[in-house]
Parts: sequence; C-alpha cells; structure tokens
Amino acid sequence: MTLKPGPIMAPLVVVRRLPMYYRHLVLLKEKGVERISSRELSRMMGITSSQLRQDLSYFGEFGQQGYGYRVGDLYQAICEILGLEKEYRAVLVGVGNLGRALLNYDNFRKRGLSPVGIFDCDPGLIGEKVGGLVVKSVDELPSFLGTNDIEVGIITTPAASAQEVAQVLAGGGVKGIWNFAPCAICVPDVVVENAHLGDGLLRLFFLMKHEGGN
Amino acid sequence: MTLKPGPIMAPLVVVRRLPMYYRHLVLLKEKGVERISSRELSRMMGITSSQLRQDLSYFGEFGQQGYGYRVGDLYQAICEILGLEKEYRAVLVGVGNLGRALLNYDNFRKRGLSPVGIFDCDPGLIGEKVGGLVVKSVDELPSFLGTNDIEVGIITTPAASAQEVAQVLAGGGVKGIWNFAPCAICVPDVVVENAHLGDGLLRLFFLMKHEGGN
Repeated sequence: MTLKPGPIMAPLVVVRRLPMYYRHLVLLKEKGVERISSRELSRMMGITSSQLRQDLSYFGEFGQQGYGYRVGDLYQAICEILGLEKEYRAVLVGVGNLGRALLNYDNFRKRGLSPVGIFDCDPGLIGEKVGGLVVKSVDELPSFLGTNDIEVGIITTPAASAQEVAQVLAGGGVKGIWNFAPCAICVPDVVVENAHLGDGLLRLFFLMKHEGGN
Repeated sequence: MTLKPGPIMAPLVVVRRLPMYYRHLVLLKEKGVERISSRELSRMMGITSSQLRQDLSYFGEFGQQGYGYRVGDLYQAICEILGLEKEYRAVLVGVGNLGRALLNYDNFRKRGLSPVGIFDCDPGLIGEKVGGLVVKSVDELPSFLGTNDIEVGIITTPAASAQEVAQVLAGGGVKGIWNFAPCAICVPDVVVENAHLGDGLLRLFFLMKHEGGN
C-alpha cells in the first residue's frame, strides 16, 4: 500500500466521499473486521466497486487482487489523506444552541478538533461555562487570535454577523473556517467549508417524493 | 421547458447536487436576475457547464441554446423536482441544543417543514415552550403519531436512543426520517437521510491539508 506524495489532486466529488470512507472504516475497525473485499466495502457505502477502486487510485495504491483491503491500513491511509494525524486548535464564535451542540459533540474531539476559545456578543452569555470553556466577548477575539496559534474558526452566529466574524478570523491567521451561518462568506487565503444544514432536508424531501416507501 | 413525468431516476451524485442548485437559484431570484447562461450558472456552483446540462437532462428539458435559463422557471422546476410545492408536517424528538437550533432555524420553515410536535424523555424539559411548541413526553409520541398525520420525523437524540425512536416513528407512519444522531438507524419502508454533521469537518481538514492558503 502506497500513498501518493504531496498535495492530492482529486475531483471534488471524490473528496466529498472521503468522510464516508472514514466513517465506514471506523465502523469496520470497531467491529474487529481486519480485511474486506472491494465488493463488500463498496456495497456498504452504496457505490460500485469500480468507483471505489477509481476513487482510491487518486490517493495511492491500495489493496491486493484477490485479497481486498486490510481495514487497519486503509483506515490509517484515509486518516493521513484527510489530515487527521494532528490536532487542530479552534475557536467557536456564536454560543447559541447550535454552537453549544457542536461543543458538546464528542465526535469532533475524536477527529482532532480542539476548541480552545468560545466567543459571543451577548453580555448575558459572557463568563458562562460551556463545554469546559468560558464564553469571552467577541471584542477579545482579535487579541486572542494574536496570542494563540489557532488554525480553525467555527462560525455559529446568525447570518448577519458571519462575514464580519470571518474577516476577524482571517485577519487573526486562521487557515480554515467551518461556517454554519446560512449565508456565503468570502475571505482571501482561507479555506471555507459551508455546513448547509438545510441541504439534507431537501434531499429527504426529494427521496420521499421519488422513492418514498420503497 | 419540460419536466419529465413520474419518479425521477438520477444518479445519487446528481441528487446530492440538487440542494446546491436550489440555493443558487434562490440567491439569483433574490438579486432580481431573470436569465442566466449555463456557463455563468455552472461557474457560480463550481461545476462545468457540461455537467450542469447533463445533471438537468435527468429531470427534463431546460434552457434554450444561445439564451440560457429563465431563473424563475428553473427555480420552479427545481422546487417541483425536490418536492417543495407542499408542506411537510414534522415531529422532532430530542429537544437538546441541536433540536432547539433546528426549531429556531427559519430556513426550514421556508422550505416547507412544519414542526407540529416536539418530544423529549427528560421530565425537566416536558412542558417547556421551544420554538412556539410545548415539549411533550416521548411516551406520548405513539399516540400523537396515531392521531396526527405526520410525514417527517427528526431525530436529535443521543446515539443510544436513535434506533428506538426511529422504530416508533416508522410504526407511527412517518415517511421520512432526518437523523442527526451520530449512528446508523435501520427501519423498513421509511426514507432516511443522515445528517453526518462531522463530514464537513473532515472535508475542511482535507482542504486545509491539500489546498491550504491557496
């Protein structure tokens, strides 16, 4: 098994499937499965086995003809491809219900996200302890970013504040923003992943209309 | 412009892009744009114009050579394809932070989701008003489903309760489940859309590792 060196150039649709690979490999590892054929793995994920092999070919050489994949090795490789071998220090801005839900969600810590500062503009929330951290005023965000090495900013503010917060985060040197506000944000030299919570609802409606009950 | 009749058979990757089409058409309508070329629309969405034309060909005939698409017509068509022309009565089970965030999120109502009952097992929450609805005991869920015509169930419970809740929802006749619990659920004859909140985080890490700062 060999991973391609250097930055990976894969189509966006393949990149979007990587988290699914990760989730299924975690499940297989938890079940104690050591080896799996491309046929079984692809069936679990609802893709074809040729799609599976083609996807993985963007990242390196995996598996063996007639043997399949070693689950542990493929898991390690996917973790490395996804950049999960390290911890990402993060701040979260907007300590409303969604922010609290994310802070209390263990899975994020397991994947390497380490929230070290949380911020809100509501004076009534400042000083409150949420998920082990004390809410600070958003006015303190620039100086906090200046003195702490923060890579990820999570925006869980209303849409109206998101762009302004994104600019402060970018100015403070974060490398990536996970944006849950229902609006586009635009900042140079920062990778942005928009959560688009509502997309799942639209897919559900589509499936109910076109596949319902089958 | 003609929509294909009957249930739509499109590859899953195309179905997964439909919400993105919807979002961009909403933006264009809000900006007052009446007409757009396939080149401009595809560039906005980060796909190629041949991919755009191919995607739409699964659903019907849209646009005109040399003219492009009428934004209002394409928006209407996408709404119809997604099944957004109606209202979906929903219950939500698990009124924690995530449940509250979803109940307070206007965009869902705009898309036709109408929560009519909310349930939790915590006696301390029962009777509380959240998003205009009073939290009921989860013990009342079967009878509520029996006397109300509910199509969608939203699960925002911890993973340990999700499968049991899903079975109650399925038994009560819901057609679709939007599952936010970080676990697989399995119920017959019901469409399930898993939210996989953490997938976005993994994509962000991937992009930071492979495209960071570009």
